[in-house]
Amino acid sequence: MTGQLVSSGPTTAVLSGAGLAREIRAGVTRTAAELTEAGTPPRLAVVVATDDESTAWYVRSIAKAAAKTGIRCDVVDLGAEATPERIRGELAGLSADASVHGIMLQTPLPSGATVEDLAASIAPEKDVDGANPVSLGRLSAGLPAFVPATAAAVLELLDHHGIALPGRRAVVVGRSNVVGKPVAQLLLRRDATVTVCHRHTRDLAAHTHPADVLVVAVGRIGLIGAEHVGPGAVVIDVGTNPTADGGLVGDVDEIEVTGLAAGLTPVPGGVGPVTTALLLRHTVESAWRSSA
Amino acid sequence: MTGQLVSSGPTTAVLSGAGLAREIRAGVTRTAAELTEAGTPPRLAVVVATDDESTAWYVRSIAKAAAKTGIRCDVVDLGAEATPERIRGELAGLSADASVHGIMLQTPLPSGATVEDLAASIAPEKDVDGANPVSLGRLSAGLPAFVPATAAAVLELLDHHGIALPGRRAVVVGRSNVVGKPVAQLLLRRDATVTVCHRHTRDLAAHTHPADVLVVAVGRIGLIGAEHVGPGAVVIDVGTNPTADGGLVGDVDEIEVTGLAAGLTPVPGGVGPVTTALLLRHTVESAWRSSA
Repeated sequence: MTGQLVSSGPTTAVLSGAGLAREIRAGVTRTAAELTEAGTPPRLAVVVATDDESTAWYVRSIAKAAAKTGIRCDVVDLGAEATPERIRGELAGLSADASVHGIMLQTPLPSGATVEDLAASIAPEKDVDGANPVSLGRLSAGLPAFVPATAAAVLELLDHHGIALPGRRAVVVGRSNVVGKPVAQLLLRRDATVTVCHRHTRDLAAHTHPADVLVVAVGRIGLIGAEHVGPGAVVIDVGTNPTADGGLVGDVDEIEVTGLAAGLTPVPGGVGPVTTALLLRHTVESAWRSSA
Repeated sequence: MTGQLVSSGPTTAVLSGAGLAREIRAGVTRTAAELTEAGTPPRLAVVVATDDESTAWYVRSIAKAAAKTGIRCDVVDLGAEATPERIRGELAGLSADASVHGIMLQTPLPSGATVEDLAASIAPEKDVDGANPVSLGRLSAGLPAFVPATAAAVLELLDHHGIALPGRRAVVVGRSNVVGKPVAQLLLRRDATVTVCHRHTRDLAAHTHPADVLVVAVGRIGLIGAEHVGPGAVVIDVGTNPTADGGLVGDVDEIEVTGLAAGLTPVPGGVGPVTTALLLRHTVESAWRSSA
């Protein structure tokens, strides 16, 4: 579909994640059924240590999606007062529990706790959201590892919509450990020429405008407008910003960019559903390996 | 010194590594003496599994530099026929030996063996050349870790010569696990806007010409010429290519770039001596921590 996208002129393709997420979930459902039949029912544990409402909503959506695909999902709520030691102990316990195949540490965390530090207590083979520095290091070194689900979702979406990467100019805005940095690693591994921009970047538009593929993962409404996007660019919007009316918008100004970009992922309905589906896929992959 | 370099007009400053390497070695010598007096003589082990002549020369130069600073350096030569199992066993043994503080696995390796895979057997606290994926991951996640010595040397040289990084445009040519990728991580951590180019990059000059800081680590003579360098750029040449007459040249065409760039590291005498000095500094740091 690359040709279509690149030559689409004044129309901008909507790069939906819904169909892809459905495909991934269908595969997960089949595998989960086989695993359960063979005596290894796949199980995901999500560790929460916050009373943030939007986090609770997100975790419930993961649990619901897991249930639909036949994966047991335990939400382990340690409360907003949990100490780093308590969280570390819980992650170590789940790592040692042979009936648990996937472990995810949800952010935000209590003040003083960082995911980079705590996630080192998640066994790498169960680290389905690629949060353990060991997973990041293996990714960076080109070794097999679980990739953070959001970063993996960006690449899956690009592949699903037939966007070529080798030799193309990819620009990532945002340098978080969960999205920006691993996406940059993955794009580099796929032979794109990769630039990472962030809050200190001078003249952001000068960097983003020539991009063939622009990935935006900052968390600021309206960050990317018409001046940031060149004709023919494929724009992946990872931002999920809550609006006053209870909705969700990305970092890209959809109205300004439509007609300019060759393709744009919607928010919601773009990267988000693919991310959740990949978390589940990673969980059955882990269960499969543990049963082999 | 930033101002001086940027406004240097038609002259190109020689960004030598000799003075910096001397400073680092002086500090290492003092610390090594203290450690030895306190009963913890610092010790570095270099594992070699090749009969490549230039490698042997490089390893001898490390051993000589170590001896001068009061660090014991054991070269463990396993021969070019060593199996991955044999190398892994040696690294594990050295990791378990409390009298060894730094372990380095020299490349090239026998066919079938990769440094990314084998270096996982180096204890992270002794991984003075940052080769273990755990070290890479911790670096990427912003946690304390040993940085590959060559990558660390690039940053030390930039700091030593007063080159500012925040918000500046840094371009890295080459994406190896030992230089390109970790240098990119370090530049990003220091708030530069970072682009990584490589063999698949189309129109290399279009990417490198706007760079404020250009780091070249490919290993090809003459890769970077006048068309690749903009006025005022600071160029760090990591390439070390042997010449027919037994000399060493970098990846940057010194004659073409002189008069254009604000500064250029010489080869030899730029990144190289700083790299060796940092390996030794990492070794005494490790010994210091083990004795604390």
